Amino acid sequence: MYIETIHSPRDLRKLDVAQLQTVVDEVRAGVLNRVSHRGGHVGPNLGFIEATVALHYVFNTPDDKLVFDVSHQSYPHKMLTDRVNGFLDVNCMDSISGYSSPREAPDYDHFEIGHTSTSISLATGLQKARDLLGGKENVIAVIGDGSLSGGEAFEGLNTASELNSNIIIVVNDNEMSIAEPHGGLYRNLRLLRETQGAAELNFFKAFGFRYHYLEEGNNVEALVAIFRIVKDTTCPTVVHIHTEKGYGYAPAKANKELWHYRMPFDLTTGDLTYKDDGGESMSQMLGQYLLDEMKRDPKLVAVTSAVPMALGFGPEQRRQAGPQFVDVGIAEEEGVAIVSGMAKRGVHPVYFTYATFLQRTYDQIAQDLCVNGNPAVINVMGCSIFGMNDFTHICFFDIAMLSHIPNLVYLAPTTYEELIAMESWAIKQDKYSVAIRVPVGKVYHSSKKYDADYSSLNRFKVTKRGEQVAVIAAGNFYQKGECVVEALRKDGIKATLINPRYLTGIDEALLEKLKQDHTVVATLEDGTLDGGFGERITRFYGPSSMRVLNFGVKKQLYDRYDVDELLRENHLTNEQIVEDIKHLLAS
Amino acid sequence: MYIETIHSPRDLRKLDVAQLQTVVDEVRAGVLNRVSHRGGHVGPNLGFIEATVALHYVFNTPDDKLVFDVSHQSYPHKMLTDRVNGFLDVNCMDSISGYSSPREAPDYDHFEIGHTSTSISLATGLQKARDLLGGKENVIAVIGDGSLSGGEAFEGLNTASELNSNIIIVVNDNEMSIAEPHGGLYRNLRLLRETQGAAELNFFKAFGFRYHYLEEGNNVEALVAIFRIVKDTTCPTVVHIHTEKGYGYAPAKANKELWHYRMPFDLTTGDLTYKDDGGESMSQMLGQYLLDEMKRDPKLVAVTSAVPMALGFGPEQRRQAGPQFVDVGIAEEEGVAIVSGMAKRGVHPVYFTYATFLQRTYDQIAQDLCVNGNPAVINVMGCSIFGMNDFTHICFFDIAMLSHIPNLVYLAPTTYEELIAMESWAIKQDKYSVAIRVPVGKVYHSSKKYDADYSSLNRFKVTKRGEQVAVIAAGNFYQKGECVVEALRKDGIKATLINPRYLTGIDEALLEKLKQDHTVVATLEDGTLDGGFGERITRFYGPSSMRVLNFGVKKQLYDRYDVDELLRENHLTNEQIVEDIKHLLAS
Repeated sequence: MYIETIHSPRDLRKLDVAQLQTVVDEVRAGVLNRVSHRGGHVGPNLGFIEATVALHYVFNTPDDKLVFDVSHQSYPHKMLTDRVNGFLDVNCMDSISGYSSPREAPDYDHFEIGHTSTSISLATGLQKARDLLGGKENVIAVIGDGSLSGGEAFEGLNTASELNSNIIIVVNDNEMSIAEPHGGLYRNLRLLRETQGAAELNFFKAFGFRYHYLEEGNNVEALVAIFRIVKDTTCPTVVHIHTEKGYGYAPAKANKELWHYRMPFDLTTGDLTYKDDGGESMSQMLGQYLLDEMKRDPKLVAVTSAVPMALGFGPEQRRQAGPQFVDVGIAEEEGVAIVSGMAKRGVHPVYFTYATFLQRTYDQIAQDLCVNGNPAVINVMGCSIFGMNDFTHICFFDIAMLSHIPNLVYLAPTTYEELIAMESWAIKQDKYSVAIRVPVGKVYHSSKKYDADYSSLNRFKVTKRGEQVAVIAAGNFYQKGECVVEALRKDGIKATLINPRYLTGIDEALLEKLKQDHTVVATLEDGTLDGGFGERITRFYGPSSMRVLNFGVKKQLYDRYDVDELLRENHLTNEQIVEDIKHLLAS
Repeated sequence: MYIETIHSPRDLRKLDVAQLQTVVDEVRAGVLNRVSHRGGHVGPNLGFIEATVALHYVFNTPDDKLVFDVSHQSYPHKMLTDRVNGFLDVNCMDSISGYSSPREAPDYDHFEIGHTSTSISLATGLQKARDLLGGKENVIAVIGDGSLSGGEAFEGLNTASELNSNIIIVVNDNEMSIAEPHGGLYRNLRLLRETQGAAELNFFKAFGFRYHYLEEGNNVEALVAIFRIVKDTTCPTVVHIHTEKGYGYAPAKANKELWHYRMPFDLTTGDLTYKDDGGESMSQMLGQYLLDEMKRDPKLVAVTSAVPMALGFGPEQRRQAGPQFVDVGIAEEEGVAIVSGMAKRGVHPVYFTYATFLQRTYDQIAQDLCVNGNPAVINVMGCSIFGMNDFTHICFFDIAMLSHIPNLVYLAPTTYEELIAMESWAIKQDKYSVAIRVPVGKVYHSSKKYDADYSSLNRFKVTKRGEQVAVIAAGNFYQKGECVVEALRKDGIKATLINPRYLTGIDEALLEKLKQDHTVVATLEDGTLDGGFGERITRFYGPSSMRVLNFGVKKQLYDRYDVDELLRENHLTNEQIVEDIKHLLAS
């Protein structure tokens, strides 16, 4: 095995070009070993192995700087930069993340990256600073065709070309985003592929880039040859390579969307070995509800920005939805703006994405949507400490981000039935811009009759009347609230339980009334404390004698945490909450 | 006068083409009348008069829908849509805003718009909804060449072309942003101008747009002819017109950057009639400080996204700064990403823009910058209720937006000297991503010696020791805090005054200590209460017997408010604050 002797790209560069294919094969085996055991981004990594080997072979890394977009294709890079154990040794797989990380490899990974369309713009910073400091290294940004649809990538291209110095942008064109790519731009990429890069009409040349095309993007020798040509260029340069997502592994080639990210699987058959709990999925059920509703309401439209599966819109569902489903590609700003425009023109649009990606469209939510008050709906996905826990994919800052935006109604359902009641109201009303925090994790049901109309804003619901202590438990943490109230009652404290339902305002009348026979209020939210929902309640009681406890997570960076530990550290276990409340009552 | 008889575009359409030039001349006189009396966007409006007249003449507005980018060029449109009084009658000028607004003209203005690069993406919503509903109207998005550099515009182009139906994008190319435009894209626009649109290399055609070029963008008859060609097209279409910013008014043509926006002026000479208070300007002084510092530190770089004047970087200052000044064009995402990359590569970058535009790069602040902890500095401009007060330009949601982002240090200086102390530390340190809330309004000075080092985070400063009541007054509102404490002392209440300095964390030790001899804490901030700085303090005291009052403004939409009224409504006059504190003490 070569791979075990490659501790740095310098070792790789000692080999002959003819030996590189063997390295490629070993890297591919290593990537497959990791993802089959642990899950991960299969297709993106398999397609970019030859290019990664060629890049490290030709360029003088780490002096020359490689920046990966999303960095979900950086597994081969990690294998070549002294992190091979994370691929070959099943006991070491947790030692590395699935994304580029300077904390892991300060010399080789220049940024913590997980969101899309950032590699070029981050690289322009390296480019400009190098030029100021008189450096000579190559700056190389890798970006997939799918990521090119994001506005930040465009802004980066625009600046990179104007800086007019060495920057090499490797466009990894596998004709795919997570699903198929969307947008007129892809027409030009197709033309360039079909003409082997010869077409005069060239998106990249329009910015002033020098441009090279390579059809054989999975041929390591051809890649070495083309990278040698552009190395040390003094001009902004694009190298457009045509690769295949999932290259070298038949199941991943056969169904590229399914194999973009995959849970652990059997290497021989490709079948999942990961056992999910077989239970219901809130997001899939909501997607099905929307699909059914579309058949009744031809004006209902679902819009996503490249994450159709977040609501279970697979190829078959998309086919059924027809023109009532729109994927704008990786373009969250467009996602929010288009639903605002659609709502204005009288249809009923629902946009959805994960909370971490919704961050990319904060201003469009505030300005394009809420300032206009257009009645579009945003389903905010994954918002929970029980959701994604990668460093760059934390989804529980959503309340802090959204709840201070004027003219937005942010709802937090607690069960499937309440979710559908809220969604059903939201997609039919024509008065408010509405966001809905889709519950995460175990699907709770209730036979309770939920309100059908949420247009009288900020009315909290008392679900259990009591005295002394009131527990206001929002959304995902409502069931935790139930447990806490139950435990307090066992201890003789007849606590009140409240489902606030609204995250963007408080029920002043109800809070005022609590003062009569309550001395302690506790707020529970599945999200960050700073800027969260609880602080609004606390501010209301600030001048009064009510004692208030806010339960949520501390503001800090989080990375692949153990959720039980996180709960404990933040005093969020049911026992700790009960304890804290009792302690305060006794003080 | 024709203009006084045009109550809707239908009246305009009764005229002969040959009569349109007279309308144009009258509109130009009206625009100049308004801006000379009241100030406003001079250049953008003067350059787009012929096109606006031609658009309303050819298209069947309001059935056909016009969406303006930024909408600072929509004055002529307003004059043709029954708002002529806002231009001709000096007493009616306040009745209209400087931007498109459905509240003003629900039939003709489809969106509240003020931020850039949104017209195409909003228009795609009108396009898609029309197609679903079987409508036949034309959807027309107007966008300036400067706005094309924003990522959202690109995302809109990408989607508009894929939707593959009627949308007409009028690119108003005046070869300018607010200052000169920046980015490789402008190379292609130049090529297209030089070839009268004939060049094969065409940014718009790359997306699949049909493309038309008109050199005579200020010739109303030529515009009518070209719009007639594209009217009712079934294909995504770009009409690229070459106009002149400031056309028809010599002073505005002679200095395009200066006349982009102008305070009231004498129509004959062009000289300002607006009298500013002649006092110092914090932003100009900070810009000068940075310029001076650049001469000492060749690694210091100032970066803006098309608003160089926000720190007084006019043409002469930009020349002096040379490569140490970067304007990335209207591209806030790139602005933050590039400074993160620059900081990573060892230079000292400072990015600056107004708070309302900083909203466009929330995710880049969180992910590209703070997750990486790169030591770049962001000067956040205009953050105050005393700043811009247009509906779409409110700058006081910044604390709510930024203060919950992990790993960001947000500082709030209270005087010029403290600003410089903080800035000087921020640009030299290499540990933190730092934002600085540049004070707005009257420049306060102090002979106090401020700390030189801010790396021990979240240490509040007690500036006046007292008891019973503590006033924690942040940034711009520190002087208000001084007045309040002074007034309380006159009433025999020896209040404590605290300058918190940090907006992203609290000084728990100090707050804990206050419990010993204080019963009331009041927080003062020049910004929104929801998600603001004060709530963090209140949460800290939630479980205690400390009574806390948070002073700031309510979460709501604001539009051209009277600042004194706003202060009173939010209990923010010094007298009201004193009153509220005394009332709480007595309760």
